[in-house]
Amino acid sequence: MTIWDDLSRHAKATADRPILQLFDEHPDRARDFSAEACGFLFDYSKTAIDAPARALLLALAEAAGVAARREAMFSGALINETEGRAVLHTALRNLDRPVQVNGQDVTPALRATHARMARFATDVRQGRFAGQGGAITDVVNIGIGGSDLGPAMAVQALAPYHDGPRCHFVSNVDGAHVHDTLKGLNPETTLVIVASKTFTTVETMTNADAVRRWMGGRVANPAAQFAALSSATDRTAAYGIDPARVFGFDDWVGGRYSVWGPIGLSLMIAIGPAAFDRFLAGAAVMDAHFCDAPPAQNLPVLLALVGIWHNQICGHATRAVLPYDQRLARLPAYLQQLEMESNGKRVAMDGSDLAHHSGPVVWGEPGTNGQHAFYQLIHQGTRVVPCEFLIAATGHEPDLAHQHSLLIANCLAQSEALMRGRSLDEARALMAARSLTGADLERQARHRVFPGSRPSTTLLYPRLTPEVLGGILALYEHRVFVEGVILGLNSFDQWGVELGKELALTLAPVLAGTSAGAGKDASTLHLAARIRALAQG
Amino acid sequence: MTIWDDLSRHAKATADRPILQLFDEHPDRARDFSAEACGFLFDYSKTAIDAPARALLLALAEAAGVAARREAMFSGALINETEGRAVLHTALRNLDRPVQVNGQDVTPALRATHARMARFATDVRQGRFAGQGGAITDVVNIGIGGSDLGPAMAVQALAPYHDGPRCHFVSNVDGAHVHDTLKGLNPETTLVIVASKTFTTVETMTNADAVRRWMGGRVANPAAQFAALSSATDRTAAYGIDPARVFGFDDWVGGRYSVWGPIGLSLMIAIGPAAFDRFLAGAAVMDAHFCDAPPAQNLPVLLALVGIWHNQICGHATRAVLPYDQRLARLPAYLQQLEMESNGKRVAMDGSDLAHHSGPVVWGEPGTNGQHAFYQLIHQGTRVVPCEFLIAATGHEPDLAHQHSLLIANCLAQSEALMRGRSLDEARALMAARSLTGADLERQARHRVFPGSRPSTTLLYPRLTPEVLGGILALYEHRVFVEGVILGLNSFDQWGVELGKELALTLAPVLAGTSAGAGKDASTLHLAARIRALAQG
Repeated sequence: MTIWDDLSRHAKATADRPILQLFDEHPDRARDFSAEACGFLFDYSKTAIDAPARALLLALAEAAGVAARREAMFSGALINETEGRAVLHTALRNLDRPVQVNGQDVTPALRATHARMARFATDVRQGRFAGQGGAITDVVNIGIGGSDLGPAMAVQALAPYHDGPRCHFVSNVDGAHVHDTLKGLNPETTLVIVASKTFTTVETMTNADAVRRWMGGRVANPAAQFAALSSATDRTAAYGIDPARVFGFDDWVGGRYSVWGPIGLSLMIAIGPAAFDRFLAGAAVMDAHFCDAPPAQNLPVLLALVGIWHNQICGHATRAVLPYDQRLARLPAYLQQLEMESNGKRVAMDGSDLAHHSGPVVWGEPGTNGQHAFYQLIHQGTRVVPCEFLIAATGHEPDLAHQHSLLIANCLAQSEALMRGRSLDEARALMAARSLTGADLERQARHRVFPGSRPSTTLLYPRLTPEVLGGILALYEHRVFVEGVILGLNSFDQWGVELGKELALTLAPVLAGTSAGAGKDASTLHLAARIRALAQG
Repeated sequence: MTIWDDLSRHAKATADRPILQLFDEHPDRARDFSAEACGFLFDYSKTAIDAPARALLLALAEAAGVAARREAMFSGALINETEGRAVLHTALRNLDRPVQVNGQDVTPALRATHARMARFATDVRQGRFAGQGGAITDVVNIGIGGSDLGPAMAVQALAPYHDGPRCHFVSNVDGAHVHDTLKGLNPETTLVIVASKTFTTVETMTNADAVRRWMGGRVANPAAQFAALSSATDRTAAYGIDPARVFGFDDWVGGRYSVWGPIGLSLMIAIGPAAFDRFLAGAAVMDAHFCDAPPAQNLPVLLALVGIWHNQICGHATRAVLPYDQRLARLPAYLQQLEMESNGKRVAMDGSDLAHHSGPVVWGEPGTNGQHAFYQLIHQGTRVVPCEFLIAATGHEPDLAHQHSLLIANCLAQSEALMRGRSLDEARALMAARSLTGADLERQARHRVFPGSRPSTTLLYPRLTPEVLGGILALYEHRVFVEGVILGLNSFDQWGVELGKELALTLAPVLAGTSAGAGKDASTLHLAARIRALAQG
């Protein structure tokens, strides 16, 4: 009998017990099933997890060796085993603590790069670095995946701290993206940041070329307004970019964990180096908490255990991330990469098939918007969607404090409604009050029943400051880590993205009409033929 | 034995057959399992649906009475039975065909409203309607849910046709949204559109008040720069809005189906009445196709049957919508409302429990971006995610045609990779070619295995014109309708959004500290108390 079996048995045995009943049985449940640290309150009392379930989940984490793996990660061991790499994005936000990788302290180089970034960002912000038509008014970050989602999400999240030039993000190889982004920008005052560790990412280099042509139509030396976030200094030099504006990072910083270093340059230019350092500091505080707090009070561990409970134990295939914070509009997209690229695997570290499901699918939109869109299914659909609410106690606009109160009321009301539901008898009473009777009353009442007992968690923070944003992201990073360790997989590789890239290369000549596409399936060939016909009018 | 049972049995019996094998067995499968109409090609050959499955699915649609319900919808019958309403958003895009609701032709009034909208939009675009500081430079649409997602998505989708004032969208009650949107706008040249059928939607009216205050700080008569998309003419008048700038619509236009009428005003101002009419015309062509085409060639019917197959028969709880079209970045969010609010139900029309799952969860991001984010899980996760690819044969930027070719190659490569996969032997050969041996080769090979046989569909269109966008949206609307009829539920109500709204009202005094919150659960009270404490510093 494994702990997994015990958990499954317990989940089945308690499946019909309403979550609300747990509060009757345990008057202190709200406090006991929540944890506070680093300024955050994480409430998981509105789930079906009871004391025995929690004990089993904590035992699962211990049996999986989470503590040892965590120690290995922070100390620079090569825990990304399939790629033979360390995992040290945490070093990017704790520049004073020496960390050895392959016998060498990596932090002096990190500090030097960080100092160069800060100087460059300050020069841009203060006009000492200027375009060929004057001070920089706009920054265009060209990158995709981890070189895009982090800074794009964070620049929006920290809008109240944004006092530098405007920032724009181009990611998609679709020419529409770069075209629409450049419309209205002045090439003479635009700084272009090309973010690609290898400086070979097809989408990014294609867009960089397009922007360089656009800029070349108006300025004498486009490369003089380019910076690069890359470790391929030979390629950035060949592109004509001054090494002073090239900021590299090591192979132990994965793309989806890279916003803390050079990939965060656009954010640093937007909010300034001081606010950027507050962002790093918030993450570092969460790192320390993750390392030091006992598992039962450890926020990343708790988030992970709730995730394991809902996905692998209860079988819920998705999780909705619902920030009641409009500036976190892109957090769900950011987390899609962080969680699904990290833990969307099918084999364990040793290559054997996983014993449990991976995943889940992470999706969401900000509240209150989602309430007017897809919450219908969350409340009354036939499948359960565990919900993760995020909410700040206060906003940044004192004159709109009444709007923030409405926001909070809605957030709390949703988790309450999901748990409480509305019984058939309550719905009948509602319809009777509207003078319905008989079969009509019964039918209308049934449409207004909410099954209830739908689980959710709430993450409360004081305000969406740079520190808090750093803390949120580090919290999710470590949550993904803990889930990965418990599932026994490697959260830090991504072999599943390779096959599509390879096949795209073989399709280009088919689409160009220079290859018949031997070995391709009939559907792909049919689509290619129709596309060629349509393109030729 | 029902058709549902037959389908389930067939799905189980064929579950282990690779999709690729179907192409060997049926050389004409690519053509036979795709359909062309209205300029679209819909390819569903890369699914496990074979001829017997298709026959059963078509029988399911026939048995459910799709044809009769369709006729009832288009003819103005009260098919939204729980609300006692007709469902006639199709009338908004076919203004010349008389339609009776409760014995009265509704089209003359629709034509009159449409003509008033076109006049007003033209006046705004040509400066005949101006702000108190000159011609309108910016339009702010305030609405939420269906009063926001449609126009916001469409304005971005049709950027190449956008030659009117800039458009902005405020939806969230979070004050950050309106604050960040107004930053940099000139109150003297901004037109405000308040979109709320009842003119009582809390989020919308709260934001309208905020914008009115902002504008009142600079212009003498803010209401003179307001328009309303509402049927509550008493309330719009009380708000001071000239009836000439109030555009109403009837109760048979649901919020999530409303972009075709007054709710589309911001889009009409952006692209002009002529292009807006092309958008309507594209939808009307799809309507006619839906009404006339035989089921086996009927695009909305086929999309619906593929959806039923994947969700209700095969049990896949989610569906990814993956537009290889950056301008459709908000299509997934739009479809989240359209599909999940319409069909995220738990009871049938008559109030009985549904016999099958509703749903699915619809989510996605544009390709190629998603490839660098969550596709890892789609390729190698343990759960199957049916994928819906959308791709245009050509883009709008002739000088960036090479980027569009890359976009297409990537789109086709993904569906090919999902279906084909990579076997363990193929992965071993790859590793052997890199000189790996023994246990190391075996382990690394296993990480590079793709299970394959993952289903996808591809919707191909010539170019994202106004007609094509109209066609896509109408296609999805009718797909949702057909799925709803087959499931036997009411796609046109949304009782599941009510409970949260009610509870939010009861929480406001708890958060304000004027109510102890009798009857509230301990978690909600604990969160409210912590929020109050944090807000008071």
